[in-house]
Amino acid sequence: MNKDNLLAKRVVDYMYDNDKFSQWLGIERIKVEQGHCVLKMKVREEMVNGFGIAHGGVAFSFADSALAFASNAYGRLSVALDCSINFSVAVKVGDVLTATANELSLTNKTGTYLIEITNQENEKVGFFKGTVYRTSKEYFKEK
Amino acid sequence: MNKDNLLAKRVVDYMYDNDKFSQWLGIERIKVEQGHCVLKMKVREEMVNGFGIAHGGVAFSFADSALAFASNAYGRLSVALDCSINFSVAVKVGDVLTATANELSLTNKTGTYLIEITNQENEKVGFFKGTVYRTSKEYFKEK
Amino acid sequence: MNKDNLLAKRVVDYMYDNDKFSQWLGIERIKVEQGHCVLKMKVREEMVNGFGIAHGGVAFSFADSALAFASNAYGRLSVALDCSINFSVAVKVGDVLTATANELSLTNKTGTYLIEITNQENEKVGFFKGTVYRTSKEYFKEK
Amino acid sequence: MNKDNLLAKRVVDYMYDNDKFSQWLGIERIKVEQGHCVLKMKVREEMVNGFGIAHGGVAFSFADSALAFASNAYGRLSVALDCSINFSVAVKVGDVLTATANELSLTNKTGTYLIEITNQENEKVGFFKGTVYRTSKEYFKEK
Repeated sequence: MNKDNLLAKRVVDYMYDNDKFSQWLGIERIKVEQGHCVLKMKVREEMVNGFGIAHGGVAFSFADSALAFASNAYGRLSVALDCSINFSVAVKVGDVLTATANELSLTNKTGTYLIEITNQENEKVGFFKGTVYRTSKEYFKEK
Repeated sequence: MNKDNLLAKRVVDYMYDNDKFSQWLGIERIKVEQGHCVLKMKVREEMVNGFGIAHGGVAFSFADSALAFASNAYGRLSVALDCSINFSVAVKVGDVLTATANELSLTNKTGTYLIEITNQENEKVGFFKGTVYRTSKEYFKEK
Repeated sequence: MNKDNLLAKRVVDYMYDNDKFSQWLGIERIKVEQGHCVLKMKVREEMVNGFGIAHGGVAFSFADSALAFASNAYGRLSVALDCSINFSVAVKVGDVLTATANELSLTNKTGTYLIEITNQENEKVGFFKGTVYRTSKEYFKEK
Repeated sequence: MNKDNLLAKRVVDYMYDNDKFSQWLGIERIKVEQGHCVLKMKVREEMVNGFGIAHGGVAFSFADSALAFASNAYGRLSVALDCSINFSVAVKVGDVLTATANELSLTNKTGTYLIEITNQENEKVGFFKGTVYRTSKEYFKEK
């Protein structure tokens, strides 16, 4: 594992250990790199909305965690400014979702990411675009 | 209570009773009308992200419930297509949030809503804009 | 006119004089303040899309100018990061549009604005939400 | 050219011939298929904003044309509901921009597209996500 990946892992381990909501969602980290990550989660009964399908907030939250992990993995505290999500296919209880975050752009102060959410049949169920503000605060000062 | 408000109440009661995720969030309905609603919730410890503040998905989910209630209150099943949210002030554990949904536009097939989220100090913590597709499926056929 | 409004006017006069695209669109400034502005424009034949109605980019551009004027009126160079727009009513040639920009939030580094676009019949034709990054560069250093 | 591509070409030719704003922008069609297209344009002096760079509305309009062409190429009149754009790199006079539209999802009633805009140095200057409502109106009834 190279130095960048080590930092990414260290930051996201720290984040995840404190991220009680991602834990409640049951998010698993499949891959975490600087500017990129792949997450997995299973939709549970307690995540449904009034239509008996997954609440839109569940897919959003899943993608938002992917945004946070991918953007903070550089070691600088980065906070979401604006996020949008499209819902294309209904998510059902029992579905196993994968979120894949890719970096669309990165400047000194901001970063933009696209997160695609797919289900176990590889259908695209949601598309999320998020922009973060990159603060100057670093997670770990020492090398 | 007029006929429109009765239908709004009936639809949203039905939705809420089945909406386990809104229940988990602890969402209370302060006011529900066709195209408009006011909701309340308290942020709990289990809703924090890796930074010790509320996960962005919590504010989104809260607003998304407001979108669903305000848009479905007409009695036609309406599903979110595209939603965006801006985060302006960090939400902390213990904060009591209010979501106010107002209709920006309504056509036969689509509706657009703005949801403002404020905290107990009346600071605006998030702004959500959502567009729904209005299906032709009605909740209750009888008058 | 107070000091803030004078600065707002001075900044936006400077911007407008250089803003050839806003000039091409025929944008008029009805009111400009820090965090707020009202603009007007008339839709011309050369602004139509392939459906014979105004190209979506025209309404967007109109709102984007309102965003730029309202956010830069504080005297600090502010650039758009992320903008979204909803289209609710078709805009036709000859329509006279009004854009009203209001500030949803303002922090040291970012600002978020909602711009409503109405036509001459006071129908809401579009809703625009934009977030700017506020650089530290000032338009005018002297008092 | 297969039947689908012929229909795509026929629809977009018809649209483009009536689309005076896309013509004013100087948009060229490099490739047009159902759900996909590649467009090109050069940024002119008259497209600048108050900062001396291209007005945000220019990149938006360019992407919005790509959205319209890619989504209408199926032969059904499709209108934009909600679009968002991120600006990552400033666009300058003389820049030659390419817009590439790809379909993220397609249902009977809606479609969602991502449009990436790059400059002549292959830098990503903007990312656009748009959702269209697919009406039942067809461009050409006959085969």
